[in-house]
Amino acid sequence: MTRLIKIVIPVATSIWNEKVKEFCEKIREPDTSISVVNLEKGPESIESYYDEAFASPYVALEAIKAEKEGYNAVIVYCFGNPGVNAARAAVKIPVFGAGEVGITFANLLGNRFSIISTLEVAVPRCLRTVKLLDMESKLASIRTVNMPVLELESKDKLLKAALDAGQLAIEDGADVIVLGCTCMTGIRNHLEEKLGIPVIDPGEATLKFAEVAVSLNLKHSKRYFRHNFKKKTIL
Amino acid sequence: MTRLIKIVIPVATSIWNEKVKEFCEKIREPDTSISVVNLEKGPESIESYYDEAFASPYVALEAIKAEKEGYNAVIVYCFGNPGVNAARAAVKIPVFGAGEVGITFANLLGNRFSIISTLEVAVPRCLRTVKLLDMESKLASIRTVNMPVLELESKDKLLKAALDAGQLAIEDGADVIVLGCTCMTGIRNHLEEKLGIPVIDPGEATLKFAEVAVSLNLKHSKRYFRHNFKKKTIL
Amino acid sequence: MTRLIKIVIPVATSIWNEKVKEFCEKIREPDTSISVVNLEKGPESIESYYDEAFASPYVALEAIKAEKEGYNAVIVYCFGNPGVNAARAAVKIPVFGAGEVGITFANLLGNRFSIISTLEVAVPRCLRTVKLLDMESKLASIRTVNMPVLELESKDKLLKAALDAGQLAIEDGADVIVLGCTCMTGIRNHLEEKLGIPVIDPGEATLKFAEVAVSLNLKHSKRYFRHNFKKKTIL
Amino acid sequence: MTRLIKIVIPVATSIWNEKVKEFCEKIREPDTSISVVNLEKGPESIESYYDEAFASPYVALEAIKAEKEGYNAVIVYCFGNPGVNAARAAVKIPVFGAGEVGITFANLLGNRFSIISTLEVAVPRCLRTVKLLDMESKLASIRTVNMPVLELESKDKLLKAALDAGQLAIEDGADVIVLGCTCMTGIRNHLEEKLGIPVIDPGEATLKFAEVAVSLNLKHSKRYFRHNFKKKTIL
Amino acid sequence: MTRLIKIVIPVATSIWNEKVKEFCEKIREPDTSISVVNLEKGPESIESYYDEAFASPYVALEAIKAEKEGYNAVIVYCFGNPGVNAARAAVKIPVFGAGEVGITFANLLGNRFSIISTLEVAVPRCLRTVKLLDMESKLASIRTVNMPVLELESKDKLLKAALDAGQLAIEDGADVIVLGCTCMTGIRNHLEEKLGIPVIDPGEATLKFAEVAVSLNLKHSKRYFRHNFKKKTIL
Amino acid sequence: MTRLIKIVIPVATSIWNEKVKEFCEKIREPDTSISVVNLEKGPESIESYYDEAFASPYVALEAIKAEKEGYNAVIVYCFGNPGVNAARAAVKIPVFGAGEVGITFANLLGNRFSIISTLEVAVPRCLRTVKLLDMESKLASIRTVNMPVLELESKDKLLKAALDAGQLAIEDGADVIVLGCTCMTGIRNHLEEKLGIPVIDPGEATLKFAEVAVSLNLKHSKRYFRHNFKKKTIL
Repeated sequence: MTRLIKIVIPVATSIWNEKVKEFCEKIREPDTSISVVNLEKGPESIESYYDEAFASPYVALEAIKAEKEGYNAVIVYCFGNPGVNAARAAVKIPVFGAGEVGITFANLLGNRFSIISTLEVAVPRCLRTVKLLDMESKLASIRTVNMPVLELESKDKLLKAALDAGQLAIEDGADVIVLGCTCMTGIRNHLEEKLGIPVIDPGEATLKFAEVAVSLNLKHSKRYFRHNFKKKTIL
Repeated sequence: MTRLIKIVIPVATSIWNEKVKEFCEKIREPDTSISVVNLEKGPESIESYYDEAFASPYVALEAIKAEKEGYNAVIVYCFGNPGVNAARAAVKIPVFGAGEVGITFANLLGNRFSIISTLEVAVPRCLRTVKLLDMESKLASIRTVNMPVLELESKDKLLKAALDAGQLAIEDGADVIVLGCTCMTGIRNHLEEKLGIPVIDPGEATLKFAEVAVSLNLKHSKRYFRHNFKKKTIL
Repeated sequence: MTRLIKIVIPVATSIWNEKVKEFCEKIREPDTSISVVNLEKGPESIESYYDEAFASPYVALEAIKAEKEGYNAVIVYCFGNPGVNAARAAVKIPVFGAGEVGITFANLLGNRFSIISTLEVAVPRCLRTVKLLDMESKLASIRTVNMPVLELESKDKLLKAALDAGQLAIEDGADVIVLGCTCMTGIRNHLEEKLGIPVIDPGEATLKFAEVAVSLNLKHSKRYFRHNFKKKTIL
Repeated sequence: MTRLIKIVIPVATSIWNEKVKEFCEKIREPDTSISVVNLEKGPESIESYYDEAFASPYVALEAIKAEKEGYNAVIVYCFGNPGVNAARAAVKIPVFGAGEVGITFANLLGNRFSIISTLEVAVPRCLRTVKLLDMESKLASIRTVNMPVLELESKDKLLKAALDAGQLAIEDGADVIVLGCTCMTGIRNHLEEKLGIPVIDPGEATLKFAEVAVSLNLKHSKRYFRHNFKKKTIL
Repeated sequence: MTRLIKIVIPVATSIWNEKVKEFCEKIREPDTSISVVNLEKGPESIESYYDEAFASPYVALEAIKAEKEGYNAVIVYCFGNPGVNAARAAVKIPVFGAGEVGITFANLLGNRFSIISTLEVAVPRCLRTVKLLDMESKLASIRTVNMPVLELESKDKLLKAALDAGQLAIEDGADVIVLGCTCMTGIRNHLEEKLGIPVIDPGEATLKFAEVAVSLNLKHSKRYFRHNFKKKTIL
Repeated sequence: MTRLIKIVIPVATSIWNEKVKEFCEKIREPDTSISVVNLEKGPESIESYYDEAFASPYVALEAIKAEKEGYNAVIVYCFGNPGVNAARAAVKIPVFGAGEVGITFANLLGNRFSIISTLEVAVPRCLRTVKLLDMESKLASIRTVNMPVLELESKDKLLKAALDAGQLAIEDGADVIVLGCTCMTGIRNHLEEKLGIPVIDPGEATLKFAEVAVSLNLKHSKRYFRHNFKKKTIL
């Protein structure tokens, strides 16, 4: 059986698609087939509650489309998980947000984790994700690299800032680091080596978890996530 | 000073506007002026995460419009608080969701509260609101009238179902009831009399709280709720 | 309808009465009438559990008297809320403590709040209030101005100390400040301007909330707050 | 060294003194000397927040007197712990409330406990004690015998009602029972035998704990419990 | 790269080995190689804290052996996770307990989960696992099939009992089920179909998660899990 | 009645026996008789999860032996409480771990406590004990003296390091200190004097608590702690 997984980058720009595709191709299992899309409409990046609101409906629509196209799972490739619950309410195939999966993994690798986020403006939504997963007492801290998403491509600067943030996190008591943005790709190994503690890349964690879910036929609960499509929605 | 308050009913139908306006006119302070609008686009009612996602961006846009029009505060007249955080990130005037305010009031009237919600499908989002307010250990239970929003106009049926739900809530340990839908208007007094414990109508609570916020010039924290409007959003 | 609200300053000195009256007159709604009294017996100020114990019975007696006199609500004008629960057990009209209301408001304006208290000795009781409201995970910190209540009249010193405390609170992660004493009147606007985050004055918040409660006929739960007056109490 | 322990029954009646004295004499260590007093003023029994408020100042005064008389510890012999914190703020000798100690013992004997309380009216204050000790997630339930304190002398009726309550508690998941009133003396053994799980009598637990505290010279923290006696209190 | 995974069944009997091997062979990825062993010494099954204590050191020794043999990961194939932390302290390759992984998966599929355990005697340790993962507020209930581990082979009886337990769990509010014993293999699909909510088999979840960990080179934190092997241990 | 208490030092060395015996003889009640034993096998000291696993079965066996010998209670004389739950499952006489008792006492003496532990490696297990007692929100911090157990005999060095740790703990908000190792004997008084807050020695606390338990015939719950001895265990 081939696993068909659709990766939705929940922003209205295609600048990340190729890079994400390339990154995910390297780590997928042999019988997994992935495709990567971005949103037609919505924000340029996900940093605020406002961004989240404008991405969410389009994420849900992409999930509906993916289900119709025969995909086995959908990944919302963003630490902020925009539209994940809406998508789950709309489809039967599993939908995973990178933030939820990345943070959840931390519980199985250590005792307390810190998130390395982008900007102060993104911190409140990180806190909300942690709270909704009931993992607040496992959170050591949230530290930032103080770089907006659209500057994260500058790898040297990112690496240096992430290292500083990681060292502060260790002082805060963290024994695991979760990268707080799916665009912080490619720095995990270097960080792990320098910091001496595990570092979780939420994007790669989520791809592998989605593969597991498809293999085991795990789906989210339709008792919890549901929607009555007889009701009208004006788009 | 006149307080100008815009009430946004976050659904793409005008069927509730007049009733809400009439209800709110009765309880406003003399120097408060209110207007009631619904969304141009979005869902017919807010019952699922999917509904929430499709209402939220339009709520944010209404808040931006209200701020430009000179309103002093915005009310998102729905227990599900769709788009409240997005709106807060977008504007400086205070924005209040009826669910958040209604539940918060319970903390000042008793020890444990129950929510009387509409349908099972709405319960998860109620739980999320309670969790995000950190009031889970004050929640006795969520009970439902098992009626969709669009049937709540049938007052006799609603009253009977709410009474049954309220009696179960008291058995669950509740000493305060919060009505879990802003469309359950007009049953509070009857319920209080029959159940013998306080009943909070989230709509009226929120209007009065918004008046307080305007009087005292209370605004939400722009350290927490913010957005960078230099970034592009494609609508 | 005129709202009749009695403000009880729970200390055995009248030095604050006039100032509180003046302050509250400015912010009340037109159809609210307020009177301000202090206790005949009890402590000079509320800073310790000992002070609280000696104020509480007299607060309850004042509430009973207020109910007989026809007041619609009672405010215990102190961040420490002495005797509030005892008063609620004794009367049917609503009774609100300034600490409980002030802290509760924070939940609707931001994510995490700090309290600016008077002295270290007052901190434990602040923590208890926060815990009893189940808001511990919203508390960023408690900072003090290191001034006893009876010196708070020295406004310049207070303002400077509060500003310092507020800046530490922001470093602690606060996005909302709650003033931890009803005698810190008159510094809110200045603090808000300098700190850039909302500041809640518990006294003014409570007066406005009491007005709301009277308007909406909200009362505390007699299932939770009750007393059997057939039993004898020796005064 | 003889341990001198003063037991304060925090009610304005002497009807319990002899019985408590007799009960405590049987379980004290040989070199412990106890005396039992009641309050001069205050409530007849402690069942509500109102009762608590009227007992607390007199408890504090008794503790001050006990310290002057040379006692090594004070016990507030009531599950409701009235005035315990006020007394601790006033004196240096240790002060223990029977509710706090009884509940704390449960943590060392099993996983989840239930309290068997007197009347519904007493339940809120039990909950508050549990919350302030941070033991809410260990609480299986609070069940009542539905008898006011002043009727608890009717041992047969009490025993039967406590047995029923205990069986419900076991269904609620309790593996330890805490008797919720120091007047439920003399039923522990019978209950343990019938229910098959440990039953804690808060009065006896507290006497023994006070002996331990005196032996080990354990005192409460004056960093947390303090009062400035230079301030005036009008009695 | 081939993933080499050692599955340790932490009991001193080989009766489960073949069945577990057969089950795991079906769900592993093509390039995963597994071996299954039981303990030389220890308990017959893991149901109590006593069983856990007698299994744990032998689990740690098996992990040390596996690391020396070149395995990439160790699975402790038991819902009770005996010796998992001890093993993690002893080796650098990742070690996963089936209970921890099974419960963690629930957080990504729904809102509240119930565990279907074997006997009442096993419940306390289930609760402890949930608490240590900080997932108590996500736990709807623990229900039992009332069958000891060694009788679970009777599939018809197990299936019927698990169905009953599952229906009670749904009444308790669960929207996801976690099977509370790795010997409940082979009933997941049937239960899912009948109950209509996701059912997690902890054994299969853990195998797949271990594969992910090896693929991504995820290891547990040596800042948290460590041991000084210079110290002597007498076996 | 003489209380017979067996103190098990859960390490495979007798170097501590005499010192512990001498220390405990000084503080026992006159009619208490104690004996002190160490383990035949197991670790040299308890610092990691690995040590804990290798001590636990031998602790359980010592408890079984003690019960047969007629002891009334068993003390596991180690802050790490190894094997305490296993022992409780195996016997009917009460078993107390020094860590559990020492931490529990803190709840009755102040508001927030800090633990002074030995090495960083021991911190995770301290945190686990606090979490399992549900006292996380009472924990101010864990500070270490940075000395392995086997060096704690160097009293001057220990005292200085503990004083430094205690001062940091006070800055962390602690108003009570719990010594995090039963080998930190003999420094309590000095620390209390210098730090000005109560210091709990877990060893002495546990001995006194065990005496109380025997006096009052308090035993742990066999509903919670049980084991089926019909099952075979291979040692």
